[in-house]
Amino acid sequence: MTKTQPSPRAIARKSENFAEWYTDVVRKAELADYSPVRGCMIIRPYGYALWENVQRALDDMIKATGHQNMYFPLLIPRSFLTKEAEHVKGFAPEVAWVTHAGGEELEEWLAVRPTSETIICSTYAKYIQSWRDLPVLVNQWANVMRWEMRTRFFLRTTEFLWQEGHTFHATPEEAAEETDKMLGVYAQLAEEWLSIPVIKGRKTESEKFAGADYTLSIEAMMGDGKALQSGTSHNLGQNFTRAYEILFQDKDLTRKNPWQTSWGLSTRIIGGIIMAHGDDSGLILPPRVAPYQVVVVPIFRKDEERAAVAAAIEKLLVELPREVRVTVDWREETPGYKFNDWELKGVPVRMEVGPKDVQKEQVVLVRRDTRAKEFVPTAALGERVPALLDEVQHALYERALTFRLENTLRVDDYAALVAAFTPAATGVEGAMGAMGAADADGAADADGAAGVTPFVEAHWCGDPACEAKVKKDTKATIRNIPFDAPAEDGPCIVDGKPGIGKRVIFAKAY
Amino acid sequence: MTKTQPSPRAIARKSENFAEWYTDVVRKAELADYSPVRGCMIIRPYGYALWENVQRALDDMIKATGHQNMYFPLLIPRSFLTKEAEHVKGFAPEVAWVTHAGGEELEEWLAVRPTSETIICSTYAKYIQSWRDLPVLVNQWANVMRWEMRTRFFLRTTEFLWQEGHTFHATPEEAAEETDKMLGVYAQLAEEWLSIPVIKGRKTESEKFAGADYTLSIEAMMGDGKALQSGTSHNLGQNFTRAYEILFQDKDLTRKNPWQTSWGLSTRIIGGIIMAHGDDSGLILPPRVAPYQVVVVPIFRKDEERAAVAAAIEKLLVELPREVRVTVDWREETPGYKFNDWELKGVPVRMEVGPKDVQKEQVVLVRRDTRAKEFVPTAALGERVPALLDEVQHALYERALTFRLENTLRVDDYAALVAAFTPAATGVEGAMGAMGAADADGAADADGAAGVTPFVEAHWCGDPACEAKVKKDTKATIRNIPFDAPAEDGPCIVDGKPGIGKRVIFAKAY
Repeated sequence: MTKTQPSPRAIARKSENFAEWYTDVVRKAELADYSPVRGCMIIRPYGYALWENVQRALDDMIKATGHQNMYFPLLIPRSFLTKEAEHVKGFAPEVAWVTHAGGEELEEWLAVRPTSETIICSTYAKYIQSWRDLPVLVNQWANVMRWEMRTRFFLRTTEFLWQEGHTFHATPEEAAEETDKMLGVYAQLAEEWLSIPVIKGRKTESEKFAGADYTLSIEAMMGDGKALQSGTSHNLGQNFTRAYEILFQDKDLTRKNPWQTSWGLSTRIIGGIIMAHGDDSGLILPPRVAPYQVVVVPIFRKDEERAAVAAAIEKLLVELPREVRVTVDWREETPGYKFNDWELKGVPVRMEVGPKDVQKEQVVLVRRDTRAKEFVPTAALGERVPALLDEVQHALYERALTFRLENTLRVDDYAALVAAFTPAATGVEGAMGAMGAADADGAADADGAAGVTPFVEAHWCGDPACEAKVKKDTKATIRNIPFDAPAEDGPCIVDGKPGIGKRVIFAKAY
Repeated sequence: MTKTQPSPRAIARKSENFAEWYTDVVRKAELADYSPVRGCMIIRPYGYALWENVQRALDDMIKATGHQNMYFPLLIPRSFLTKEAEHVKGFAPEVAWVTHAGGEELEEWLAVRPTSETIICSTYAKYIQSWRDLPVLVNQWANVMRWEMRTRFFLRTTEFLWQEGHTFHATPEEAAEETDKMLGVYAQLAEEWLSIPVIKGRKTESEKFAGADYTLSIEAMMGDGKALQSGTSHNLGQNFTRAYEILFQDKDLTRKNPWQTSWGLSTRIIGGIIMAHGDDSGLILPPRVAPYQVVVVPIFRKDEERAAVAAAIEKLLVELPREVRVTVDWREETPGYKFNDWELKGVPVRMEVGPKDVQKEQVVLVRRDTRAKEFVPTAALGERVPALLDEVQHALYERALTFRLENTLRVDDYAALVAAFTPAATGVEGAMGAMGAADADGAADADGAAGVTPFVEAHWCGDPACEAKVKKDTKATIRNIPFDAPAEDGPCIVDGKPGIGKRVIFAKAY
């Protein structure tokens, strides 16, 4: 037996310092790195391969629901951004501006797109003339830029990658249905592909997209109990189509502004995968999107052993279904080093092949999530490996769901709400500074050392002032009003007025 | 039989005005459109689907040759761009600059990347320490920006989409091999996927990439005889690795700068597909990358007929292999309108299904390239359609190759060279203005009306002054020094000095 050695790539303990753990995992598992440009990150090959798998899954779903990809320009004239009043108020402070190009100062400044509603509306004002031109169902995969002051790998970066869907419809009902449908697609991606259970619901007025009638979101609990808004779907109503004078002639011959939606999911979700599943040893990747699903670690001492092991591996690789993504680690390092390295990188299943295994025509399979070990005859690998990957995929989901349920409180008393979000006195958790490095002002945001911030289900009257008071007192916000929360009357946890008829979710959020 | 009707989407005749024809095809086939930002285009769903198919094919080849995708930031600090002297000279005039962001003026201007060598070198200076870290084989799919004065859809736009590969090697031999290999990948993409025959070769000193030791290119002849540089692969030697102080410890314990390559292929290739294959009716798309390979046009007069035809189509779609991309056009338009529309869009095979066909259990297949028509029993479709798509794929290549050979001259006399590039007196071909719209200064660039500008194979002594004289007198440039041109001595066509030992290709170029 090979003894596990200390990793040369030590990371902070998740339970002791979640923020530092997160940054360590991102950098040492080589998902991403700092860049020379403030707030922008470099997505390294391992991180990008993970993103490509997420992209592929989501792109297939976006196309299966009838949308087509296209591409709009990166730059948006300043005058466009200012047409929808709420929108410009929301985004203008974060915009990066191109002012000079081709050796000259530009007549009009150009925004690096923070999102593309404005340029898309200006374009579709030309294309949409009749009800026959509707619905328009398009999407683009693109980079966008929002000049954030505090950045964190994947979670909040100045430049990020995303898809943004944009649709126009002939009726408000259709737009509402589309808004729901695409939230459903995001929930499916999160739950079925990323093993992240999510709460679907509607954002409050104060948290909605700048320019939307309303915003829907999926919210997930991370390993420290904080919420991650993981995808949003906006019903824009006629706000932009009026501002941009998009008009179509309907079947009844009247001219109307179409109803519009937009929806986006970004590289932020990679942060979600890390924080929903990782442990003290590093990443744990959901098999369906893991760049490598299986890593084979050959174990041998002498050259003869090496040859026998290599031959056995050659043979067993043929047993595996083609669609299993597998890598063999022949580096000149000890098995223990490799075990740690691939655990850090979160490969769902490790396959050990040593001389004894070769003799017995078997291998050792070790799950990354539970570290459970099993001996499997080589002949059974074709069946067992895909089944084991499925088991890991589901187990990660179940574990994350259990964790969320265990850390969700029903609270009916304001003092208890405040207490729920107040860290234990002993707690020292650093807040994340620029790009997620723990920094000195951590104390202000400190939670319990091994403590998990809860999700709190509470009644709320609908008044933004009550929401604001909770935020001021606890830093928690209403994540959303869950679709599937049961109808229940109760007094607002802040001012005691009648609630909106179901509990909302309060949580601290990324 | 349905009579073909005049298209509601008339386009200029290719033989009469190639530039206008090109712009018409791009816009009316809905590949791309003008955008509100100078020189940037909107890539519409049909054009983007074509690009996605090209991307997928190339991405697979890039990965199969051992490269990994990653992602570097969009913005590059000004100080980075200036480190490699040739590079900054080449790119600085075309850069778009972000000077303000987050409501403040930036301390250092940030370039919207025109290409990413500089930021990649600054990053890999950290990662590359030892020969064990080499080779580095990475690639990114990204948008880049070069502030061009005269823009044309796909061929030259201010923002464009591309992939840029970047590699670092421990020996100059490996870097040279990589440079060759990736040019080979581009040639394979062009010839096997896009049916575009290309000439592989080396650019002259005056045409190489700013900062490279040398540049290789693939050059293709377009329908008007002009050349399109369709992909380039650069051997950067140690020029950047010295400037950026990238050093590795080699096996012999000495410290060296690694040898570097970069290579790129962009949305420009879409322009190549259009111009290599299209005809007076519009696009002709190579089947392997066509968004739709087959369009089914139902033909019926009465409702009963419609039902029978619909049932037959339902059944025959099942006969087709799953991988065939097929669409059925049920729009309320005449068959003639649909024929024209899909010809404009270049769908390789049209399938007509009318009541008589249903009775006879057959369909009519019409090839887009030759318009040859055949009756095929429904039961044979599963075999015949893929075979026909293959035939079209190969026929397009053969046709383009024949066209190039027929329009390639061997010239040994300067007056003949000048004459070859001098349009007939009657010719009026407009040059392309901004975004490819034919404009008034066309006369200056006029070629023969129905005339095709040739490729000219001639001897050249290697002196940039001779190259410059040809350019001044004819607007033609040396496209490349072809790898597979036979060894042949001869006097330089300009100054009569001994040639470089093989003929080079002179052509007018996009």
